[in-house]
Parts: sequence; structure tokens; C-alpha cells
Amino acid sequence: MASGKIYGSGREARLAIRSGEHRGQTAGIAPGFVQGNLAILPKALADDFFRFCQFNPKPCPLIGASEPGDPRIPALAEDLDIRTDLPLYRVWRDGKLVEEVPDLKAVWRDDLVAFLIGCSFSFEEALVEDGIDLRHISAGTNVPMYRTNIDTVPAGPFHGPLVVSMRPLKPADAIRAVQITSRFPAVHGAPVHLGKPELLGIKDIAKPDYGDPVEVKADELPVFWACGVTPQSVIATVKPDFCITHAPGHMLVTDLKNSRLAIL
Amino acid sequence: MASGKIYGSGREARLAIRSGEHRGQTAGIAPGFVQGNLAILPKALADDFFRFCQFNPKPCPLIGASEPGDPRIPALAEDLDIRTDLPLYRVWRDGKLVEEVPDLKAVWRDDLVAFLIGCSFSFEEALVEDGIDLRHISAGTNVPMYRTNIDTVPAGPFHGPLVVSMRPLKPADAIRAVQITSRFPAVHGAPVHLGKPELLGIKDIAKPDYGDPVEVKADELPVFWACGVTPQSVIATVKPDFCITHAPGHMLVTDLKNSRLAIL
Repeated sequence: MASGKIYGSGREARLAIRSGEHRGQTAGIAPGFVQGNLAILPKALADDFFRFCQFNPKPCPLIGASEPGDPRIPALAEDLDIRTDLPLYRVWRDGKLVEEVPDLKAVWRDDLVAFLIGCSFSFEEALVEDGIDLRHISAGTNVPMYRTNIDTVPAGPFHGPLVVSMRPLKPADAIRAVQITSRFPAVHGAPVHLGKPELLGIKDIAKPDYGDPVEVKADELPVFWACGVTPQSVIATVKPDFCITHAPGHMLVTDLKNSRLAIL
Repeated sequence: MASGKIYGSGREARLAIRSGEHRGQTAGIAPGFVQGNLAILPKALADDFFRFCQFNPKPCPLIGASEPGDPRIPALAEDLDIRTDLPLYRVWRDGKLVEEVPDLKAVWRDDLVAFLIGCSFSFEEALVEDGIDLRHISAGTNVPMYRTNIDTVPAGPFHGPLVVSMRPLKPADAIRAVQITSRFPAVHGAPVHLGKPELLGIKDIAKPDYGDPVEVKADELPVFWACGVTPQSVIATVKPDFCITHAPGHMLVTDLKNSRLAIL
């Protein structure tokens, strides 16, 4: 999924994005550095969304948030400007996508709060480094994602189903993957399910609700993690009058190291 | 499986066994204390068996061993006498069971080496304390065990298939069980497999090779751990001219606390 140049740090990647040198997706562009899902909401909705993340830490592990109107989040990167440092943004009005823009200079407002939510790139890097093959990465496709019959814990207007991502793994690799991803609670942590998609209300594993399908071979189990698409799906349900997200695959690259997210 | 009295420490349980007050199985008689599988071999075979345990730490996690001819293992319990402190022993000659005895006073020899191997009671206690239901415990039966198509790593004459125990668990409990048992490498550690018994060469999950069958419900996965019956099965294959084991379920109770085996 990486398109071209690889940068030696999160800061170098951000500067390339800020200057317009890098305009594509961010998977793999700064190995070792944490990337984040972006959601920007008006202050009037922000407190409820904070609570929603707090109540649903597996799909919505909050790694940083801005003060209202302030485009900086120093905890994620000293020089970060959330208006310019992602390659592509989506602007939503009343739940409808109205435009994709390369920066937020024209749409930024003093009442906006930016939320950054941990993403599976971090734990996928740890799995691949351990020698576990992830099919969607080998195939160069997006991970398959499914809406489940499991409800998130609601907060204010925010509610809706848990969305999960799926990676097919041999049983011994599935056990190893539980061990590895348990170390990364800030990026979804351990799987929420494995082996029985029907118990999650998934009728056809070959037909994901988001992303691309991958084959599950006879000697493999489908392993499911809580997914950062959950908050986007929940925001889409609420249809806020104004909202900004990253465009799929075009994430924020931070200065945090993936290895520093490991709790053990 | 506990038959009557519960003792407050490993030492109290051993004294009751040594005096003949307790003669039955040991499951549950000293909650919180590590129990061990016993194998006693002549010195001529002991070095190879040491190596076998070293090469196969998941089925054969060695928690203690004696010097040749010495019935003490102070690392497991200060006052331990391996000849008197288990409720029931099996004496084998040329691979055949020749007698069950309540102590080893009449058969002890100066060339014997005692091996103690960690047992699943320790991790089962941690699972049950976490609120995970283990069906064979609820049913009061022995855990089902299966010979697999996975070979152990041979050492000298010792070789043979890995034996696994199986516990049916709901997927979320299976994930939690991987986390919990990973903390206990000295008592078999994380599962070796889950979900696909046929990949282990198990033809009929309802027909275990040892122990009693348990139902695997439609919303459960069979979860498999390396089993301490493996070394007994391997020793039976070698048919040493002389050998002693504990009688099934009649284990050594040590002074080690289960919680102290947790590496994290």
C-alpha cells in the first residue's frame, strides 16, 4: 500500500505531506511510527465523543486530542498542525461527504476539536516483524472489515455497532497474535473474537462491509480485532452538521514510536 | 475431583499424605500451591530425560529434579521426601505396570533420579479465578487428552508424539485464556492450538486417548494445551527396565505458590 518514498521519521513524513511532496496513502511511509485515525467535531459534540471513546476503548483507543480551535497536539508531535499534516481529508455536512481536500485551511473553525484514534498499522507491524504473514498486506489490498451484532456503549448521540477487521491466521499464529497484540492496548489490543464469524452476526465472510475480501484457507481461523472504522461509522449515524475525517488510508503520522505503545 | 479435606498449605497437605491421613487424589487439596507430575528414572537414563525436557519445554516444563539417590528436592519444599509425600505411586518394570504403592520405601534405589514436571492445575486455577468455566471441572471428570500427529524433539531413547489436553471455550474466553496461560510457562504456558482438531491428527474429539470426553458446544472452540502426560507416554514407549510415576491424579503438592509461577 506504500506508494513510493519511505521516510526515516514521523516528522520527515509530516513535512513531506505538509509541503505537498507526499500526497498518497500513508501505510508504510514511516516504519516504526504510530499513525492515527482522525475525527474532527464541533465542541458541542466533543464532550459526548470523548465519553464515547472512554466507554469503548477497544474500537476507539484515543491517542490524542486537541483543545477547541487549536490545531496543535504536542503530545503526538511537537510541530504538528492538524490542518496541514495529513495528505487528504474528508469534509462532511449533515452526514454527507461534501468534499475531499488536501488541507483544512479554508474550513478550520475556532470551535473544532480534533481526535486521534490508534490504528491497526502499529500492531500489524509487530505481527509482520514476528514473521506472521498478513494476507491483505501480501495482496496489497485493504483489510476486510465487518459491522457486527455487538453494540458499542452509547454516549449522548453516539451509538451503533462495533466494526471489526479480520485477518486469517493459522491456529498457532492466531495464538501468537493474541500474545503480541495484547501488548498494544492503545491500538485495539487483543482480538475480540476468533473462529466463529456467525456469532458476530457476519453472514458471509467473503463480503466485508468495508475494505476488500481475503481468502480464509481450510487450515486458518478468521481472527477479528475491534476496528478504528467503528467511530467513523458511529459519526456517520449521528450525521453531525459539520465534521472532518481523514480520507481512508491517509492517516496522521505521529512522532510516537510503535514500540513505545507496547505495555510489556 | 477433590476428595474431602482442604489444607492451608502445600506442607500441611504433604504431612497429611505422609502420615496416611490423605490417600486420595490431590486436585484442589491445597488451593494456590503448585502440584507436579512425577517421573523417577535410573541415572543411566536421567541425562537423556533431562535433555528431553529441555528440548520440549511446553509438554515437559521441569520444575525440579533430585540428585541421584537423594529423595529430597529442597527447591520445591524444604522437608520434601519424594518417597513418602505422594498419595499413590506406580512402579513400572520393562514398560509394564507391576504395582501401585502408597510409598517408595521398599523400592527406592541409590541410582534413582526424580523429575517433577509442572501440571495444568496451576493454570486452571488462574482461569477459574478469572471467571472462566472449565467443563471437565464443572463435570467432575478428568480433562480429555489426545495423542497428536506432532512429534516431540527426541533425546537419546526418548521420543514420541505430543499429547495435548483440551478445554472447550467460547471465543472471547479462548482469547482471555491465551493471555492468562501465557503468563505461566512453567505449567505448559499458552495453548499450542485451537479450533481445528483435524490439523493435530485428532479424528474424533469425542474419543480422547486419555481422560474423559467433554462436549464442545456450537458456540465454543476446542482449545489445546501441551500436556504433562506427554513424558509418561514417551517413557512408556522407551520401556525402561525400572521406572516410577505418580498414579494418575495423585500428584506432588509443593510449597511453591501458583501465583509465583506467573512471569508477569
